[in-house]
Amino acid sequence: MPSEFALIRRHFTRPARHTDLAVGDDAALVRPRAGMQLAISTDMLVAGTHFFADTDPEDLGWKTLAVNVSDIAAMGAEPRWVVLAASLPNADEAWIEAFARGFFACCEAFGIDAIGGDTTRGPLNLCPTIFGEVPTGTAITRSGARPDDDLWVSGAPGRAALGLADLRGEIRLAKACRDDCLAALQRPQPRVALGLALRGLASAMLDVSDGLFGDLSHILELSRVGAEIDEAALPLAALTDACGDAARAFTACSAGGDDYELLFTAPADRRGGIEAISQSLELPLHRIGHITAQTEQLSLRTRDGQLRLARASGYDHFGRSA
Amino acid sequence: MPSEFALIRRHFTRPARHTDLAVGDDAALVRPRAGMQLAISTDMLVAGTHFFADTDPEDLGWKTLAVNVSDIAAMGAEPRWVVLAASLPNADEAWIEAFARGFFACCEAFGIDAIGGDTTRGPLNLCPTIFGEVPTGTAITRSGARPDDDLWVSGAPGRAALGLADLRGEIRLAKACRDDCLAALQRPQPRVALGLALRGLASAMLDVSDGLFGDLSHILELSRVGAEIDEAALPLAALTDACGDAARAFTACSAGGDDYELLFTAPADRRGGIEAISQSLELPLHRIGHITAQTEQLSLRTRDGQLRLARASGYDHFGRSA
Repeated sequence: MPSEFALIRRHFTRPARHTDLAVGDDAALVRPRAGMQLAISTDMLVAGTHFFADTDPEDLGWKTLAVNVSDIAAMGAEPRWVVLAASLPNADEAWIEAFARGFFACCEAFGIDAIGGDTTRGPLNLCPTIFGEVPTGTAITRSGARPDDDLWVSGAPGRAALGLADLRGEIRLAKACRDDCLAALQRPQPRVALGLALRGLASAMLDVSDGLFGDLSHILELSRVGAEIDEAALPLAALTDACGDAARAFTACSAGGDDYELLFTAPADRRGGIEAISQSLELPLHRIGHITAQTEQLSLRTRDGQLRLARASGYDHFGRSA
Repeated sequence: MPSEFALIRRHFTRPARHTDLAVGDDAALVRPRAGMQLAISTDMLVAGTHFFADTDPEDLGWKTLAVNVSDIAAMGAEPRWVVLAASLPNADEAWIEAFARGFFACCEAFGIDAIGGDTTRGPLNLCPTIFGEVPTGTAITRSGARPDDDLWVSGAPGRAALGLADLRGEIRLAKACRDDCLAALQRPQPRVALGLALRGLASAMLDVSDGLFGDLSHILELSRVGAEIDEAALPLAALTDACGDAARAFTACSAGGDDYELLFTAPADRRGGIEAISQSLELPLHRIGHITAQTEQLSLRTRDGQLRLARASGYDHFGRSA
């Protein structure tokens, strides 16, 4: 069996393009560019909690990095470097090779140098830490939403949840939509270009990883505001077509995680700029509601015009938030 | 049961001192100082592989960070920031509180801001990523050793291995030495001040985590040199006194990991400077051999004057290196 060092060298050493010292020493060395803040995020993916142990390793390699790239996108930052720590139950070279292929495909897609890491034996656990750069003072945080700001979401959140339900045999998606929903689950596309374009336009932003309504509550909490979502404005039609069930489509959109779409707020006078971005990126951006002054209160304006308090329902790994 | 978010907030949010945006957003924001390179390292600690699941959580919190601080010290860099990803089997608040106490004690000891992380449910796994700063071009890598350089090691490597053997019931350490060996194992002291002092003096450096001889092989490989170690110069006396067994003392010193001492090379004309550092830090520094031109060949000059080829015997998580 090849040693840990040999396996890592074989599959995880690729030329770095903007790194002073990459894999192989006690630490990697990088130089952020002048005038830049460094945006740093880490996400741990555990077999059985975040993915099935038998997930296709190439998809898993992509997704392991993509979900971290999404955090950088959500700051309006440009992803630059990543380190990967991994615990593996065994040194299965075919698995490692496929995982590395997916991981580096994501590196290539977003111009990221993989600069180091750590590999050890143990239950399957993948832990990237990612670094982006953003001109000092221009990062889009969760705390900048103001009453009367518009509330926007990119793409079609809920597709990944429908894909997962199909894989679990709970539903059977229409053939024309199934591939699209599975791709959203297995090969999520972090919205880096959108995040960069929204600098100077968005007042607050995050990526939807645990469910739209639940994640929105983080913006409400940190910005000390409330929100009203307009059910009629949610992008539900395609989801309903896919699964043939309007209630499931609503749940997938409002509480399904794993799509990694961007949820953001912006003053109403920025609508033109945001619509122009949507066109130039060929990415639908949906204005789904607005920010209110009712701190941390999330309301839903239903199709029949009634306003009801929506429960925050993000997935919390250790229980439900109050 | 408190939610994940509440638990993290309660125990892992402390004031940051040199950070623009810490815990709570999609990413943390930091600004490296002008003229600095960023040194980045990650180490994953897995229950059952790197520590006993019933390890005292406060010790574990210290050690989880300390082993990462050691990687920064080994570059001659100054530790500045850390993010911690953790997978926990359950939300045991007493355990988390004690772990955080040890982790933040180490943050305090070395001036490190904890700026973010991720917590999830799963088999116990702790994964910090640490960031240090070093003036551009002054980092001490593994690749700078040259033939005829002296070979040095700090402290008394092997104490942690003896402490572990005692805990496992394999040996019984002398009472006067036991606490010292257990402290080396449970509360390792990363050699940050030494690493900083060696800038401009050491030609190559790493921290001993997997065993002195085995880790030395990384310097030999990256510097394309060999080394000759002088058995009589190894700091074995105290180890032999502690365990009453010269052979075990030799094995602990040469192959025991987990002490996190620094192993470094330096030109012979730097001896005076290095001895002065030893005095000012009150830290023994042992000149244990020298670098040779025999690429990757590690030899041991035994007490009787014979030269024999020493096997590299570092611990490799997936088998032995060739």
